[in-house]
Amino acid sequence: MQLAMIQDAVMPLEDLPAPYLDRGMFFGDGVYEVLRSYEGKLFALDPHMQRFEESLEAIDIRGIDLDRVRRHVIDAYAQSGISEAKVYFHATRGQSARDMTDTPGLKPSFFMTVTELEDYSQEKDQGIPVWSHPDWRWKKCHIKSLNLLANVMARRDAHRRGGREAILFDEAKGLITEGAGSSFFALLLDVGGCLTLRTSPLIANILPSVTRTYVLRAADNIGLSVVEESVSCADAIQAQELFIAMTTHDIVPVVRFAETPIGDGKPGLVTQQLMSEFRKFVG
Amino acid sequence: MQLAMIQDAVMPLEDLPAPYLDRGMFFGDGVYEVLRSYEGKLFALDPHMQRFEESLEAIDIRGIDLDRVRRHVIDAYAQSGISEAKVYFHATRGQSARDMTDTPGLKPSFFMTVTELEDYSQEKDQGIPVWSHPDWRWKKCHIKSLNLLANVMARRDAHRRGGREAILFDEAKGLITEGAGSSFFALLLDVGGCLTLRTSPLIANILPSVTRTYVLRAADNIGLSVVEESVSCADAIQAQELFIAMTTHDIVPVVRFAETPIGDGKPGLVTQQLMSEFRKFVG
Repeated sequence: MQLAMIQDAVMPLEDLPAPYLDRGMFFGDGVYEVLRSYEGKLFALDPHMQRFEESLEAIDIRGIDLDRVRRHVIDAYAQSGISEAKVYFHATRGQSARDMTDTPGLKPSFFMTVTELEDYSQEKDQGIPVWSHPDWRWKKCHIKSLNLLANVMARRDAHRRGGREAILFDEAKGLITEGAGSSFFALLLDVGGCLTLRTSPLIANILPSVTRTYVLRAADNIGLSVVEESVSCADAIQAQELFIAMTTHDIVPVVRFAETPIGDGKPGLVTQQLMSEFRKFVG
Repeated sequence: MQLAMIQDAVMPLEDLPAPYLDRGMFFGDGVYEVLRSYEGKLFALDPHMQRFEESLEAIDIRGIDLDRVRRHVIDAYAQSGISEAKVYFHATRGQSARDMTDTPGLKPSFFMTVTELEDYSQEKDQGIPVWSHPDWRWKKCHIKSLNLLANVMARRDAHRRGGREAILFDEAKGLITEGAGSSFFALLLDVGGCLTLRTSPLIANILPSVTRTYVLRAADNIGLSVVEESVSCADAIQAQELFIAMTTHDIVPVVRFAETPIGDGKPGLVTQQLMSEFRKFVG
């Protein structure tokens, strides 16, 4: 008799609740999105849907009706009545007995949650410390997949050291890629003494972050020059200002990089300008 | 109200069945093992338990009672009454709302299945075709983690091309690491004209395969010299013989590498000797 066991309970395999046989669990064989609302309005649904479609295509998951997902997001969000919400959804290749080679004709699994965003205002006001960590991730980080153990390990390491986020760097090249769950930005003086915003180019095995796009637009709006080039950890600790950006909390100032305070150890003025500018997008 | 959605069904978040909030699903934040039985006897339980412990330690999952897991494996296998079984088990960091930063004190999740091994005798008798694929995996492949999307993508690509397994190669170095779900071995003539068995060293970002250990022991038993050095795809297509090895089917001859037949396109004689020798371990 084929068996399954959950914690200490044995059962016939056929009595196993469905999600236990999901390829998302066995292989991380799925892709996800996170978006949020500001004051009762979903923000940037279109680019998130666009990226979700690209992720599904990249790993060849078929049979997800994107119009239906879009409606589900809008309807479930409306039903939640949450002002500042986090909307998470993923699709996996489907459910079947564990076999790396998938059975043809699997029906993909869709899953979503709409939850209250945690309050992050203190971190946004005061800035956060971050720690660097080697980037151990796979070579296809432009795909927003469920394979996030390298990110988890880096984040946990940063937390143990008192950091709120891990900033990943490519060990071979010595260059920062991005945060474990964020994009990374540095404000540096260029050779002409001009303040420029530096962030990794999309070719650097990073996620094409939706929030990153808005940050670059905000920079443009305030006349800040942007250079899409990766910085090293040595550059980062000498930066005028640092910040990270992610869907859930948009721009968050970084006031310490490992053991080095950045600037005067307080959120930088340009970062604050960008935060104000960003608010205009979500108003 | 916080909500969840499974396929098309909306429900309050608190009504969500537990596994949907497992960190195994969200992040692949867990590790696993697969072992098998031969003719009613579990094979190599100890080294699998040892590796499981090492994987748990590597990603710092605590609170799994390994003696209990061991008893669970033995008891569930006995209860199944399956002669040729595949035993799969995993542990994840636990269940909670999705947050990359884990809540302290999470209780790890344990999951196991005991199922019939699929019949692979034809493949073992006749050999299989394989295809090469770039190794897109993360940098910690010695950890047997649930982050297997790169493996899935390679395996699916191989299948589309008519292969049964994908042989991964490091794009920068041009060297084969291992199969998507197997170890890779080549029988090559050395400069002295001696047949030697070549396989990647454990430092080459590969899994410390239990089956690999037994293959190397079998090679020693038949007086075959072994060199733990990675081979290139160019080496592979010129090999005298090729084979892969994995827990579920131990040694499987490879008779075609991408479009190139290996040897006379039939399982090699030395490979067959190793298969016979391997059988002695499991008798």
